[in-house]
Amino acid sequence: MVIEKNDKLILLTNDDGLYANGLKTLFEVMEEFGKVVMISTIESQSGMSQALTVKTPLRVKLLEENDKHRVYACNGTPTDSIKLAINQLLERIPDFVVSGVNHGANASVSVLYSGTMAAALEGCLYGICSVGFSLNSFSPTADFSVCKEYIRIVMKKLSEESLPPGICLNVNIPATEADKIKGIKVCRQSRGNWKEEFEKRKDPMGKTYYWLTGIFQNHEPESVDTDEWALANNYVSVVPVSVDMTAHGYLDKLKKRFY
Amino acid sequence: MVIEKNDKLILLTNDDGLYANGLKTLFEVMEEFGKVVMISTIESQSGMSQALTVKTPLRVKLLEENDKHRVYACNGTPTDSIKLAINQLLERIPDFVVSGVNHGANASVSVLYSGTMAAALEGCLYGICSVGFSLNSFSPTADFSVCKEYIRIVMKKLSEESLPPGICLNVNIPATEADKIKGIKVCRQSRGNWKEEFEKRKDPMGKTYYWLTGIFQNHEPESVDTDEWALANNYVSVVPVSVDMTAHGYLDKLKKRFY
Repeated sequence: MVIEKNDKLILLTNDDGLYANGLKTLFEVMEEFGKVVMISTIESQSGMSQALTVKTPLRVKLLEENDKHRVYACNGTPTDSIKLAINQLLERIPDFVVSGVNHGANASVSVLYSGTMAAALEGCLYGICSVGFSLNSFSPTADFSVCKEYIRIVMKKLSEESLPPGICLNVNIPATEADKIKGIKVCRQSRGNWKEEFEKRKDPMGKTYYWLTGIFQNHEPESVDTDEWALANNYVSVVPVSVDMTAHGYLDKLKKRFY
Repeated sequence: MVIEKNDKLILLTNDDGLYANGLKTLFEVMEEFGKVVMISTIESQSGMSQALTVKTPLRVKLLEENDKHRVYACNGTPTDSIKLAINQLLERIPDFVVSGVNHGANASVSVLYSGTMAAALEGCLYGICSVGFSLNSFSPTADFSVCKEYIRIVMKKLSEESLPPGICLNVNIPATEADKIKGIKVCRQSRGNWKEEFEKRKDPMGKTYYWLTGIFQNHEPESVDTDEWALANNYVSVVPVSVDMTAHGYLDKLKKRFY
């Protein structure tokens, strides 16, 4: 694949691995928008947040290449994949970093744990227009085709006008029939957390181990301006996410406490 | 260790592992403030961000216990450790989650990659007053004793009055002699990113691999209200960090773009 000056170059990844249906869906739509470099892992990397591989070497393999796309396998986290592609694999900085479609929602505080959204945040740190897509279903038979229309709408908006520096988009799509989705809602991250997070089990030797599990609690189910409300009411949620985690609204009060 | 109703209970972790000097330093100061439950890994977990262990079981071992503290070894990430302690190991919700002292600064965008700060964010998600401490030195002989005075100041402030919901503190301490530190500066996360992030090498078989490395670029070295400026000028930086990553200042504009 030759990347011409006028080509739109899209760097694509996910955290469910190269063989995930969500990645296939996103890849198909991305080919409508430009030349695509896809990089991901063989196995899934869910819940890796913005983790970096610092203690082991990273390997990359070019799996496939034609006039319109390239596909790489990488053994690192989604964040490693984006960093490696930008630093070592791409001829130039891409026009977009796109991540997903994640198998499961990344609304509310899941943005903090999500490998999918970490890849978008990483693109954003490089000054690239970046977006992560997720489907609100953990079902093994989840149908990702409903996502395509909304991926196109978001990508058209971003093609017309980029995002401000330090901001990427977190897009979550309801898992329902296309005609039941009521449209797109720009909203904020809902307040919530997880509870009952572990199952305590015994291994065949009689020793205790724990499996991570848990139930999400939405702390504000009545707030209509949140991503959780949007998803629960069959809207596609679009949250602008900032790489600046400073609690700006609390700065002045904290300054007074330390004087 | 019996945890009485009036005891201050402190949950302590880090991402450099149980044998790190920074953890020892923080533990010594924490024993002045309450009963301490320490949980960490044998090996370091640097750069793990808020990663969760979802594909393998977690194990925990009580290593040590007396009237004033308990020490657990865990095989998970810093976020796993905090979740496990709160859900399975502690008799009640702790009064503080404290993380560090990290070997190396977690200023600017490092907050996104930091396992130390992820532990504080996790405590914060449980509604617990949480803080991460880091020393601005990667030297193997770094002297953490300079941190003690500032850890005490921060913990006294937090003991007098907690933090608002969803906000924890990111405290970075300059690595210099105590009398050269000019005081504490409450500030915001500096804008920056990393460049030249990989070394490309050949293994003994002649195959290419990559090691993560990189140089931090501060995008606003002149801004006196940032954590990077504070550290560069021998101030302890204190940044209030929010679990809400919504770019609130951009919400209205984005809403207009999607109507």
